[in-house]
Amino acid sequence: MDAAEFRRRGKEMVDYVADYLENIEKRQVYPDVEPGYLRSLIPEEAPEEAESYEDVVKDIERVIMPGVTHWHSPYFYAYFPTANSFPSLLADMLCGAIGCIGFSWAASPACTELETVMLDWLGKMLKLPADFLAGTEGRGGGVIQGTASEATLIALLAARSKIIKLIQADHPDRSETDIISKLVAYSSDQAHSSVERAGLIAGVKMKKIPTDNKFSVRGDALQKVLEEDRAAGLIPFFFCATLGTTPSCAFDCITELGPICNAVEIWMHIDAAYAGSAFICPEFRPLLNGIEFADSFNFNPHKWLLVNFDCSAMWVKKRSDIIGAFKIEPLYLKHDHQESGNHSHWQIPLGRRFRSLKMWFVFRMYGLKGLQAYIRKHVGLAKEFESLVRADQRFEISADVVLGLVCFRLKGSNELNETLLKRINNARNIHLVPCQLAGKFVLRFAVCARTTESRHIQEAWCHISHLASELLQELKIKY
Amino acid sequence: MDAAEFRRRGKEMVDYVADYLENIEKRQVYPDVEPGYLRSLIPEEAPEEAESYEDVVKDIERVIMPGVTHWHSPYFYAYFPTANSFPSLLADMLCGAIGCIGFSWAASPACTELETVMLDWLGKMLKLPADFLAGTEGRGGGVIQGTASEATLIALLAARSKIIKLIQADHPDRSETDIISKLVAYSSDQAHSSVERAGLIAGVKMKKIPTDNKFSVRGDALQKVLEEDRAAGLIPFFFCATLGTTPSCAFDCITELGPICNAVEIWMHIDAAYAGSAFICPEFRPLLNGIEFADSFNFNPHKWLLVNFDCSAMWVKKRSDIIGAFKIEPLYLKHDHQESGNHSHWQIPLGRRFRSLKMWFVFRMYGLKGLQAYIRKHVGLAKEFESLVRADQRFEISADVVLGLVCFRLKGSNELNETLLKRINNARNIHLVPCQLAGKFVLRFAVCARTTESRHIQEAWCHISHLASELLQELKIKY
Repeated sequence: MDAAEFRRRGKEMVDYVADYLENIEKRQVYPDVEPGYLRSLIPEEAPEEAESYEDVVKDIERVIMPGVTHWHSPYFYAYFPTANSFPSLLADMLCGAIGCIGFSWAASPACTELETVMLDWLGKMLKLPADFLAGTEGRGGGVIQGTASEATLIALLAARSKIIKLIQADHPDRSETDIISKLVAYSSDQAHSSVERAGLIAGVKMKKIPTDNKFSVRGDALQKVLEEDRAAGLIPFFFCATLGTTPSCAFDCITELGPICNAVEIWMHIDAAYAGSAFICPEFRPLLNGIEFADSFNFNPHKWLLVNFDCSAMWVKKRSDIIGAFKIEPLYLKHDHQESGNHSHWQIPLGRRFRSLKMWFVFRMYGLKGLQAYIRKHVGLAKEFESLVRADQRFEISADVVLGLVCFRLKGSNELNETLLKRINNARNIHLVPCQLAGKFVLRFAVCARTTESRHIQEAWCHISHLASELLQELKIKY
Repeated sequence: MDAAEFRRRGKEMVDYVADYLENIEKRQVYPDVEPGYLRSLIPEEAPEEAESYEDVVKDIERVIMPGVTHWHSPYFYAYFPTANSFPSLLADMLCGAIGCIGFSWAASPACTELETVMLDWLGKMLKLPADFLAGTEGRGGGVIQGTASEATLIALLAARSKIIKLIQADHPDRSETDIISKLVAYSSDQAHSSVERAGLIAGVKMKKIPTDNKFSVRGDALQKVLEEDRAAGLIPFFFCATLGTTPSCAFDCITELGPICNAVEIWMHIDAAYAGSAFICPEFRPLLNGIEFADSFNFNPHKWLLVNFDCSAMWVKKRSDIIGAFKIEPLYLKHDHQESGNHSHWQIPLGRRFRSLKMWFVFRMYGLKGLQAYIRKHVGLAKEFESLVRADQRFEISADVVLGLVCFRLKGSNELNETLLKRINNARNIHLVPCQLAGKFVLRFAVCARTTESRHIQEAWCHISHLASELLQELKIKY
């Protein structure tokens, strides 16, 4: 395919993409296929000879689309949102064309520099303390990670490296593995599975702190475990707070937890993967109060801030803590401006795409006000759904609705709710996933798509309510 | 921006991308900017109000392009190639539009399934042993990682988890940290910096095995270190072989190393990040002989197989070894087809893009023959450059030219060669990076761009030779 054909095919693809997104609600949100469906639809081997583009394109509808879960359908209420916006798609086309690998400043200065500035822009939108901004002379700053999982792991590894150095400074004879064997990290019992996995990878103990009746970690709960662990000869070194947990969008109480961590030099990392985007609105910014105590902070603009995956924003107060944990610099990566920033020291992969272009396009095409309006609209839709649930005495709300997630269930057994969810998902009109809260099986309704409107919420509730009625009638359950 | 505007702007962007790539050689390959150049060109904060698309687009040439290192210019000979092809760009547009997050089969079945089949296609192109293919019943299979660094880390962590389980099966009282403190992993002293970093992250000792005069690790060198380490009470458990090292594209002798690793149950991972693409050509496939001894294998189609970054292909013989090391499954990720493949257990991030679309488009639009022709063309161009160097008695070739990389230098001091490289890069006509080989400062000439032709090679040599003449004249050096 030469440039001339690309011009033609590219424009066709732009129309295909626009058609797909404009008409997405006509597609069934969750596919009907069975595992292994795809293998039989395509050859067992790559073709020897080139095929025509027409043949490839035809297969999108024949092979791919029947197996797609349509995350951007307004009938998709599962997991958390993943962003998709036109400015971001445009920026990604440009990113692909430039196709630079930004592992050092010299490898493409614009890639490193725009990223630093965009993370400052975004940090200012969130009103992060100045410590977290790079500016021209700051010791902190931000970087784009692929996912929140990577950010948590990076923070944990940096904290591990820092505490080892600290202890070895006083006890030069203590081995790294001996120290690691005593280290203990903490997170909420509601924290994402990736936090536990980060502990596995780093080879350190990771303990879950019990949460209160709002599913938040409170200061006294952490304090208690810290005292027990210290008494047992362990070395607490890392606490991962969650703002907006995956099960119920609960918020750990960082104004209590932060001072405790700071007092005993425990690295506090804040994972606000989903909720972080909302902090650009003044009315939600108080949820981030306590950020001043954190060593590192992360959230995913690729979830709720209209920047397509992957774009996970991470800030640290001291860049040197992160860089010190990873820096290895062979000759083929050295250049004349060594000290000009090298984000690959901040992350697991060495290579990196020019992802900040997506932020730049989205922030400018929406403006702060447009982004705030978008967040508010989703929160409003969640509140609307919450009201519908609350108005139906068969149902209960299982956790405070703070942002765009509503956790709800039929009053009654877990089995009843499991059956209801199965029927909802089998009907394929909308798509939800469950969670477990205080031993209860709960349905999660997350406002996800950019194009979700009130009518979709009403329709979804009508459908859920109808399926519930059917189920309750069959089981002869009355409220 | 609504869909109608996206149609218009998307088509403009397609033209911009085509123009950029068609005319890339008119741009200076390496930018003139100084560190910090970008910050002063844009506002300090994101705009409150939305800007017009025209304003954003104007800034691409004003703000971004002056700071781009043009990796796809035929004057770019630095590092290793990163792929860029039109079919891949089209597939990426589709990937962005679908915008699914493939962390489980249910999250988008097509995403998981196409990936498994594409890795089988690619494995067959490479004539991997059947053990590495998933098929419908295989225990092995492939997965797309972001980068080779991640693949190495994943392999190392899986090996660490496997050896710990193995030892604890016999000695249930031995603690994990005690075992980890004795573990030792190995790689070539020529291995990529990311291998050493994987050791740092996993918290295990990582030793470098000395290479022979071809910069390859040989069996006896590994054997010697293994014996010493065993005698010292250490537990060897992982060897990362490199096929196509970053400094000189050297190949570890896996036909010797594999049987040693197999005999003593050391996990052998093969990192062929750059060279792997060449193994689709029968004449280069012998370089992969010995793969049958490996536990895991990785290379980057995003380097040399026309699939845009990121797309690093990794295969394992036993999926269960990888999955067992990471699997943590909360309720919100459970679904009815739990056993249908879940690539997020194979990787560090939880989220993942629909990257296999790029492979599917590229493999079909080029066909195996087209891909082979592409590899052969680049190798031919490297050989052409090698002949030019060899014909000039002032220069020497520093390592065998096997694929698309030529390592060369002026006969003489390191300082002389450092000066030559500096002049080459300062002139900005072409872009190269150096490496160190056996204490010598060496220039690396890697054929990178898809559009590099013989005339570019001739021009590049002419330029290098001219700068060398000037330098030697100034220094009054004669050969």
